[in-house]
Amino acid sequence: MSLRDTSFSQGRRVFQPPLIKPLDTAAMDQCQIRLDNLTKPLGSLHSFEHLARQMAGITGNPRPRSFQKSIILMAGDHGVAAEGVSAYPQAVTVQMIANFCRGGAAINVFAEHVEAGLVLVDIGAAADLSSFSQVRAAKIAQGTENIARGPAMSREQAIQAIELGMVVARDEIGKGSRILGLGEMGIANTTPSTAIIACYSDKTPTELAGRGTGISDAGLHKKIRVLETALAVNDPDREDPLDVLSKVGGFEIAGLAGVILGAAAGGAVVVLDGVITGAAALIAVKLAPQTRDYLIGSHLGAEPAHQAALDLIGLPAYLRLDMRLGEGTGAALGMSLLNAALHVLNDMKTFGEAEVAVAQDGPGALRQNKDVKD
Amino acid sequence: MSLRDTSFSQGRRVFQPPLIKPLDTAAMDQCQIRLDNLTKPLGSLHSFEHLARQMAGITGNPRPRSFQKSIILMAGDHGVAAEGVSAYPQAVTVQMIANFCRGGAAINVFAEHVEAGLVLVDIGAAADLSSFSQVRAAKIAQGTENIARGPAMSREQAIQAIELGMVVARDEIGKGSRILGLGEMGIANTTPSTAIIACYSDKTPTELAGRGTGISDAGLHKKIRVLETALAVNDPDREDPLDVLSKVGGFEIAGLAGVILGAAAGGAVVVLDGVITGAAALIAVKLAPQTRDYLIGSHLGAEPAHQAALDLIGLPAYLRLDMRLGEGTGAALGMSLLNAALHVLNDMKTFGEAEVAVAQDGPGALRQNKDVKD
Repeated sequence: MSLRDTSFSQGRRVFQPPLIKPLDTAAMDQCQIRLDNLTKPLGSLHSFEHLARQMAGITGNPRPRSFQKSIILMAGDHGVAAEGVSAYPQAVTVQMIANFCRGGAAINVFAEHVEAGLVLVDIGAAADLSSFSQVRAAKIAQGTENIARGPAMSREQAIQAIELGMVVARDEIGKGSRILGLGEMGIANTTPSTAIIACYSDKTPTELAGRGTGISDAGLHKKIRVLETALAVNDPDREDPLDVLSKVGGFEIAGLAGVILGAAAGGAVVVLDGVITGAAALIAVKLAPQTRDYLIGSHLGAEPAHQAALDLIGLPAYLRLDMRLGEGTGAALGMSLLNAALHVLNDMKTFGEAEVAVAQDGPGALRQNKDVKD
Repeated sequence: MSLRDTSFSQGRRVFQPPLIKPLDTAAMDQCQIRLDNLTKPLGSLHSFEHLARQMAGITGNPRPRSFQKSIILMAGDHGVAAEGVSAYPQAVTVQMIANFCRGGAAINVFAEHVEAGLVLVDIGAAADLSSFSQVRAAKIAQGTENIARGPAMSREQAIQAIELGMVVARDEIGKGSRILGLGEMGIANTTPSTAIIACYSDKTPTELAGRGTGISDAGLHKKIRVLETALAVNDPDREDPLDVLSKVGGFEIAGLAGVILGAAAGGAVVVLDGVITGAAALIAVKLAPQTRDYLIGSHLGAEPAHQAALDLIGLPAYLRLDMRLGEGTGAALGMSLLNAALHVLNDMKTFGEAEVAVAQDGPGALRQNKDVKD
């Protein structure tokens, strides 16, 4: 995977997404044969079977077993926080990073719960984080500009953030991870995420905006007006995902889009989290549609824009927990489901192994007769 | 908990449900104070917080940590299988029990995944299972009668099955389990389950019936006609849950209703599985409404009657995996979510511990200021 596939065209920097291989359909077909022969009605573990088959396609192994996992949590601040669109002050971004380092946050608990490593990346927090040795320094700037007044960042910065994300993904894959979960921290970041999704959705900011971490009715009305203003002031070009990203996005959103591109190029699966990672995935899929095959949805968060993003990408969400936290908590839970899917694929017996009769009725009747070699 | 609270009234045996304590609201309030002080926006881990609070109420401990878990899988056969309502022959019930004993089925994998013990109970399989030493013998009869022609069982048998379930729950609680998952195996058992749910739902058999383990269109039409016939022939009295259970139910459904009653009486939480356990829960809640506080939903299965049952009980389902297997697979996944909820409650830091600022806007602003003793 090349990390410097960028060039200039008519004075504007062009981003060339990395080469992404199509899924290995032979491995998927072989995987499906085993799934169909497990001692259960055909297709009865529906989503788990889909996840197992997808892992077979990504890894090229018809019977993938278990993989090292990393949750990549990118932190960035947002100029738009000045508009009062969040329930929390901007200082919380840095306080929470300190909390992640000390192990006291939800994502520490969830990452441990699924035995995933936690990779903290400062891609744009509005403070000097160099004293935190556990945080990878990749800061582009101390927060974006206020999207209610102009573009969040330059096109060059957006490309730089994507490339940084690709490097982080490459490094994690290099250290052995094959399942990458996405997480984020950034006060006010549901606002730029919703703005990105609004560019591609039929829905209005009023329909897409949610309460983020828990703003009041007055705060929600303000957030909707800010979103309308940001879209009017910046007029992003939806045909140019980098234009959308740079005008109404955020550094962590761009970085996570890069993680997705890097993961897909490196043959790793990506487990999404909530609306912010949904916006990043939407940008990644617009830049390189093949990335979609490498994505796994997890939970459906409380932000209305999250469902819209998943619908636009065409991904299911498996969990309904009404969470609105981010950090990668939903991604960790998605990893747990992926683990369960691989357990099913590997540890259940086939009809032949277990001497159980096959179906006598239904579309799958008799198909289980084909026995499978382990 | 008394297991023989039964008596006769006007010649008809009366079942007296066991005493079930209301939840400990003081423990729940204390638990909520800690949840509100954890380093996350108020309520942002919504369902996890609800689960943690419920466990506090059930156990009387404001900070419950971890519990031994059992999945109770009850097997029964159904006379109605003769009508061709299932994709599989009745012999599969016993073959799958053998498979559970050998560890090759989905529930073996899922139970191991969540470190739950698996308790196999023969409450009505249509075969002699005495050679399976791992199966608890509690057989009432070799399968129910055909509900398309008359009642599934006598009222006496229904009460006997409930009482057996209560004993199984009591025994598991006695061995240290405090989280009981429900599972079942019984070819054709979505038909009696749907019949029970139809007695309490506004929906018709056509709206409620699903494809079970995967019947064809013709099989589905036949199943709907069988359901209509069973309800017409038996005319169950919805004001009398035992009448419904005995006329159109099944032994494993009755046994699982007993497990729920026994668990609630013994202070254990019950994690539901799919539509069959949903029908059992509906009967348990009709017999003793307080059991509802001890129930946890898990996944929403592919059978339309499952959503109807959960709605009637008033329980959310957290997972959308389109599974249609049963065995307790969904219950195991629900246990995993409950585990995560207890991790959150215990292992996250409070704002005071982590030195993170509190909300400046929103309904929860300032509430996090109250610090909490561990």
